[in-house]
Order: sequence, then structure tokens, then C-alpha cells
Amino acid sequence: MATGVSVENINPKVLRCEYAVRGEVAIHAQHLQQQLQTQPGSLPFDEIVYCNIGNPQSLGQKPITFFREVLALCNHPNLLEREEIKSLFSTDAIARAKKILSMIPGRATGAYSHSQGIKGLRDEIAAGIASRDGFPANADDIFLTNGASPGVHMMMQLLIRNNRDGIMCPIPQYSLYSASLALHGGALVPYYLDESSGWGLEVSKLKNQLEDARSKGITVRALVVINPGNPTGQILDEQQQYELVKFCKDEELVLLADEVYQENIYVTNKKINSFKKIARSMGYNGDDLQLVSLHSVSKGYYGECGKRGGYMEVTGFSTPVREQLYKIASVNLCSNITGQILASLIMDPPKAGDASYDLYEEERDNILKSLSRRAKAMESAFNSIDGITCNKTEGAMYLFPRIYLPQKAIEAARAVNKAPDVFYALRLLDTTGIVVTPGSGFGQVAGTWHVRCTILPQEEKIPSMISRFREFHEEFMSQYRD
Amino acid sequence: MATGVSVENINPKVLRCEYAVRGEVAIHAQHLQQQLQTQPGSLPFDEIVYCNIGNPQSLGQKPITFFREVLALCNHPNLLEREEIKSLFSTDAIARAKKILSMIPGRATGAYSHSQGIKGLRDEIAAGIASRDGFPANADDIFLTNGASPGVHMMMQLLIRNNRDGIMCPIPQYSLYSASLALHGGALVPYYLDESSGWGLEVSKLKNQLEDARSKGITVRALVVINPGNPTGQILDEQQQYELVKFCKDEELVLLADEVYQENIYVTNKKINSFKKIARSMGYNGDDLQLVSLHSVSKGYYGECGKRGGYMEVTGFSTPVREQLYKIASVNLCSNITGQILASLIMDPPKAGDASYDLYEEERDNILKSLSRRAKAMESAFNSIDGITCNKTEGAMYLFPRIYLPQKAIEAARAVNKAPDVFYALRLLDTTGIVVTPGSGFGQVAGTWHVRCTILPQEEKIPSMISRFREFHEEFMSQYRD
Repeated sequence: MATGVSVENINPKVLRCEYAVRGEVAIHAQHLQQQLQTQPGSLPFDEIVYCNIGNPQSLGQKPITFFREVLALCNHPNLLEREEIKSLFSTDAIARAKKILSMIPGRATGAYSHSQGIKGLRDEIAAGIASRDGFPANADDIFLTNGASPGVHMMMQLLIRNNRDGIMCPIPQYSLYSASLALHGGALVPYYLDESSGWGLEVSKLKNQLEDARSKGITVRALVVINPGNPTGQILDEQQQYELVKFCKDEELVLLADEVYQENIYVTNKKINSFKKIARSMGYNGDDLQLVSLHSVSKGYYGECGKRGGYMEVTGFSTPVREQLYKIASVNLCSNITGQILASLIMDPPKAGDASYDLYEEERDNILKSLSRRAKAMESAFNSIDGITCNKTEGAMYLFPRIYLPQKAIEAARAVNKAPDVFYALRLLDTTGIVVTPGSGFGQVAGTWHVRCTILPQEEKIPSMISRFREFHEEFMSQYRD
Repeated sequence: MATGVSVENINPKVLRCEYAVRGEVAIHAQHLQQQLQTQPGSLPFDEIVYCNIGNPQSLGQKPITFFREVLALCNHPNLLEREEIKSLFSTDAIARAKKILSMIPGRATGAYSHSQGIKGLRDEIAAGIASRDGFPANADDIFLTNGASPGVHMMMQLLIRNNRDGIMCPIPQYSLYSASLALHGGALVPYYLDESSGWGLEVSKLKNQLEDARSKGITVRALVVINPGNPTGQILDEQQQYELVKFCKDEELVLLADEVYQENIYVTNKKINSFKKIARSMGYNGDDLQLVSLHSVSKGYYGECGKRGGYMEVTGFSTPVREQLYKIASVNLCSNITGQILASLIMDPPKAGDASYDLYEEERDNILKSLSRRAKAMESAFNSIDGITCNKTEGAMYLFPRIYLPQKAIEAARAVNKAPDVFYALRLLDTTGIVVTPGSGFGQVAGTWHVRCTILPQEEKIPSMISRFREFHEEFMSQYRD
């Protein structure tokens, strides 16, 4: 190898960054998958079950037909001039594609758009937000992005000046936040969710964490909240949301609200309120609170991860700051137009009376009901295994079971220089083909060990998966019993 | 407005970043466009002509039919089960869509892929590179990206540790490089292209620039070369390429080859050689040279900017460094699948004998011939205007005419705190609706002034556009004549 650039002289922030959901365990799974293809029968299982990442369509979830019809027509607008499409596409998909194309000069879905995204699509999204919240939304506040992740990076780029700038993040948190903070060289200021109360949040404790960080010379610039929680699956109470909003207002923190799972709810006694709705219903507007709300086409009932669509709604920032955000967006020109279109579709799906509505409703409800059944089945299965406890998944796509590892297992892990939960997850993978993400990638109270496991395996596969998991766990525990 | 985050306390690297092609002039054009819509007749023109950015489809260029057929089918794979498609899609597009879908587990174009991109598509791209160069290429070296820009950012993120790390860039250069360097806090080490010899490059002078930077304590990590040039449109001689490769090898610099215009050639006496081909034909392999080659679906005859597809081919880096690059890629999960598919299609278009070939060839040749005619027409028009000289555009999509501004114009610009070429471009826009990008956004020899103007306006519009440009320029010059 040529010697100019080596791992000794690259940017140390890159070295420090860890992104667990695509980290060591996931990479090992890719190698095993190749081995299964080249040497079938060489492993104790014949399939890798990816529960490490919220990627529904990779595990068999079908896309919503209406969305894909519109995307096909927008990708090949010449089809709209042909009679034959009437038997291939629903009338409302045809009408929607025409409407979307009419928003794009020259119907050119192959052209760069405005760096915030196509104005007409942002109008649709703003209307969808307004109708969801009952408070107005403005297309100028919307930045369309390639999934939600680039929005997070943009905000980090804007806010982090050096390693004395910090962002408050829940622990456990989605690894994107810690990874992005590491890449931008900022400090993660933790606030802990309480496992014993269903990953509850006590706003009074936030103040302590904030003051602790400030006493160490950290300028805390924003607070991340993920609702429903990732990896923890809890849904915040309305009261907690009020307190969080007030806290951010009083402390002049940007509220960075990760609301990408807003459609994934599996309980009937709670509902999702966007933080914008909460803030506006408290009478707070852009003069009181700097709020960024993130959404994505990758989750919900649509699960269109590969399309890389999403948006952030940005309110409460001055025009000069907005101009700087626009500049950051413009350096990558624009997000992909297919993802932009899809982001508008999820915020304005078919309505009762539309030709596609019945099919759309059936597809959506089947997916959400199935996810709800899977969440409950896997949660009770985990709770039935000795040495594992698991909080209820109220929303999102994950379980975050706690694994009570014996001291001998912890020592065995240390002996091979692995975190104990990484050691456990690698052994699980090697034995069963099941891929989970170790809890240490999300953060956890010291001395506790978890794994994040998606609720996405196909329903018919869950019993056998759980039984393999149980068998592995029992063997592991008996091997290392104290 | 809430006061936590203000322009005074954001990341100063963001403030320092400038991205001219979407900068002040382009933003002003957007405002004028809105004014034309809301108050027709209020401006001295009735149309904005965007010559500031290489965005062919926004100016009427049609996409290649075969590519769009494949994208439509891959976006809505259910279509493949329907008889009716036989009259709507070419047989080879149907076959290609089936082949691509067979590379994706579960045919799930809505799933996240491997963070480098779908393996089967990378295989196709590697085969396309090997066939282009006559030297092998490996799918493991390919990173699929949302256009070429994210590849540049990834390399900057990897290489730039602090403001003592530098990258050699041509002056004039494509503003992405200076913008990305500013965001990552590195130093731009210039090497100058010689306008008087058709933007020629003297490799012997590179050494001086490098040593000058080193003497100032800058660690130079990479050299950017853009071939064909942007904004300058020249094509490098083979001999210059050999010398550049040897220079990078000897000095242990990463060679960052921006080859996104490799299909855009308008002269018959030169051809495009990829830097990988040049290096391999010199007998250099991954032990000798660290080479990154960038390509994109946005340019060429395809011009699919809005699809955000592209790749970088990375050779000569050790496994640990490659793992770090993979990690950076994985933090954004993967690039959009539509763009990934399109990147494979441009590297493996229809072949003679395929059902789509005749149409494909006709569409491709018409676009390239028309671009060539436009380049020549606009170049001679600029050269016929008093006070403007313009080098020949051998490739890419731009002219970079030099504007000989009178001293009084320069003083008038300074009086309103504008760079003289920005002042000129704003006046041009306000008077004619023509949007160009000021040369200062690309860098230019001190005391010279340029604008970058794409060759993309529709052919029938060029005569009137040129005559408006000429008229404006003459008035401007007579107003400020010394």
C-alpha cells in the first residue's frame, strides 16, 4: 500500500466516531452472510436475521402501492402520455404525479432543485404539518434532506465550534447523535432515562446534568429528544413534553426533536404530539424557542429507507442563521428528488374517497397492526427468558432488553478486549445468525448491559427466532454462571 | 426571534465557507424569479436564464429514455408482473430492471443497502471502469454516493485534522473544494492554471507551490485535479497526466481526480484518460499511489442532477483506512437507491444490438453534439464582444470568459462593498435575467475578473441571450469607461 495516508495520520475525530448499528457486529454479519453464500452449510444456521437496524423492507415489509405508483410515474413522466397506464396505475396516483410534476419547472425530476427542496413539495409538507398539529407551518422553514441523518449533521455543523460545545442527549440514545458529535468534535452531555419506570424522563434531573456540564466549562447548545424513543421505545407523556419545552426555552437550548417514529405507536393510552404542537399550544412561538423537528420516509408504516427522504422543520432562528443553514444545505446542492417526492407523499397520503384509499388504508393498517403484534410477542418472549428483562415498546421499532450478564461472562469479554454486550452479541450472531446491536453503542447506566433488537422480523419467523435466542442465552448463561 | 443561537455564536467555519454557484447572485435570481411570478412585467425581462450551474434538465435537456424506464420499473417492481408493460417499456429495460432487482435481496429498493452501495451494482460499475480503462477494477473499491459532492466531503473529513492540513487545488477551481475545505477547517493550497495557454498546467510549478506551503508549516495531504476542467473547460494532455501522477506518487499526495465530465468532450484532437488508467499504464498500482476518482450521474449526456447518484473509486489505501472511510459512509447509512441504480446504468448503457440501442445512441449523440455546438457558439460570441476574451471549451459544461473591467467599475464595486465580478454579475442579472457565477467564487489571478457561464441554454435561445449580454456589456463599459 502507498504510505501517504495511514490510520496514524487521519483525522482523529473520525477514529473517535463509533456508529454501532453498522459497527463490528453488523460488519461480522456481512462476512457470515458471504460465507453462507460461498460455503453453504458451514455455519450452524442457514440465514442471517438482521435485527440490528430499522430496515423494514429488507425483512419483507412491502411498500405502500400508491407511493410507488407516484414515484414510477414521476421517474418516467413520458408514461403519463400513454393510454395503457389507466389499467396499471390508480387514477389518484396519476393525478398526484401530474400535480407534483406541475410543481417542477419543465417537469424535470432530473434537475437540481432549490437547496431546501422543491417549493411545491415543501408547501404540501407544511400543509401536512399544519393539519397534524393545528398550528400553521411554513414552507420556508422546511429543509428536505436525504433521510433524517443529514439534518442532524447540518445542525451539528452549525452549532459545534469546538470540544467545549455540547449537546444534551438521552442515554440510551440513537447512535447517530454520538457519532455525529464525535465527527464534529463536540461533547455529549448525557441525561439518563430511567429503565425502572419504562425509560421515564425526569425533567428536574435535566437541570442537574446541564449545570454539571456548565460547571465543567461546556457551553450546552441544544437538547436532543427522541419521541417515540430509539432504542428505548417509550412515548413521552404530554406533561413531560411541556416541561421539556419550558426547560429548553428557559435555558436557551435548541430543542432538536427526533420525531421520525411519529407514526409508530402500539399503545392506545398514549398519543404522539409533535414538539411544535406542544410549544405552540403553550403559546410559545419563534420568539421563545429554537426548535428543529426531524422526520423521515424511512420509518412509520412506509419504511422507505433506501429512498433517503426526510425533512427538518426549523423555527425560531434569525434570518442570518437561516441563511447559514441554507448555505450548508447548498454545498450538497439538494437532496434527491425521489426522496423529496416521497416526503411529500407521507405527509399527504390518500384520503377517504380517493381511488387508492381503501388499498392504502388496508396496507397501512396491516403493517402497523403487525408491528404492534410483533412488539408484544417479542417483548413477552424476552421477559420469559431467565436473566433478561424488557420494557414495553410503546412506539418506534425496537426492544432494548436488559441482559443480566454473570461476572464470569464480563471477565471473559474483558479478556478478549470486548465490551461485555459486544461479546454477547457476537456470540449470539455466531451461534444463531441473529444480529442485534450492543447496548454500549447507545449508552447505558454503568454496569448494566443491553442489546437493541428490532421488532421487524416477519411474524412467522418470530417463534423460531425467539427459541433460538432462548436456547443460546441459556447455554451462554450456563457456560458463564457465577 | 429566540436568542440562544445567533450568527455571532455559530461555528465560524460555516461563516467562512462560501459556495458561489449557489451564492449571492443565485439567491438574488430566486427573488427575481418570484417577482416575475407575482408581478409580471415589473422587470426588464420576462425570464431568468440560469447559466450559473450545470443543471441541464432545468434548461430543457431530456433524460435518456432507457435510464428512466429502468428507474420507473425499479421504483414499482409490481409492474414487472403485468402484461401491459410490454407496450410501454423496451424489452431491454424490462430485462435490466429484473437483473437489478435480482441483485437486491427481496427486490427491496426501499431497503437501506450496504453503506458502500448494493454489491451487484458496484460489480457493474467496476466492470464498466475496467472496460473503459483496460485495467481491472474492484467492487470493494467503489463507494456509491448521493452525487459526487459527498465523496469530496468524506475525503476532507478523513484527511483534514486542523488548519495546518492543506489540499492543493487548481485556481480557478470548482467552488465545492474551497467550500468543503472551509467547512472542515483545512487550508487551500493553490496551483494556478495559465489562462494564456488555454488554462494550461505546468507540473514544474506545482513543486514550487507545494514547497511554499510546506515552508509555511502546512502538511499537504492531497491534490485535486478536475479533468475536464471546471470552470475552465480544458482537457489535460496525456503527458500532463503522467507528470501529475508521478508528482503525487513522489510527494505522497492523495490524487483526488474529479472526473465527472468524462463524457463531455467537444474536440476531436484530445481524449479523456482516467487517472487510474494513466497510473496503471505507468505501472503504478495501489502500492505506489493513493487515488480517488469521482464520478456522477449529474453530468455527461445524462445530466441527472436531481437523482443524486455518483461514486468514488478508492485505491491505494490500507485496510484500516478503508475501514474508517466505510465508517464515515455508514453514519449516513447509504446513498439513495435510485441514484445507485442510475450510477450503474451510466457505466453500462445499452449496447449495439440491444432493443434500446438505436434510441439511446440517437438521444446521447444529439445531446453531445448540441452541447458541442453551443460551446462553440457561445465561445465565439464572447470573443466577439469588446473587453471579453474566452478560452475554448474542450470539455465539461462551462465557459470562463475574462471580463476586462475598467478601473471605474472596480471602484464602483468597492464603493458598495462587492467584488468587481460580483458587481458585474448582479448588474447583468438585474438588466437581462441572465445568471452567471462570478469568477471570484472559483479563484482567479489577482486583478483579473471572470464569470462562469454554462453552455446549457437551449440552442434556439442562445442568439437572443448573447445579444442581451452584448448590449448589457457595452452599456456597462460605456458607463464606467476610464
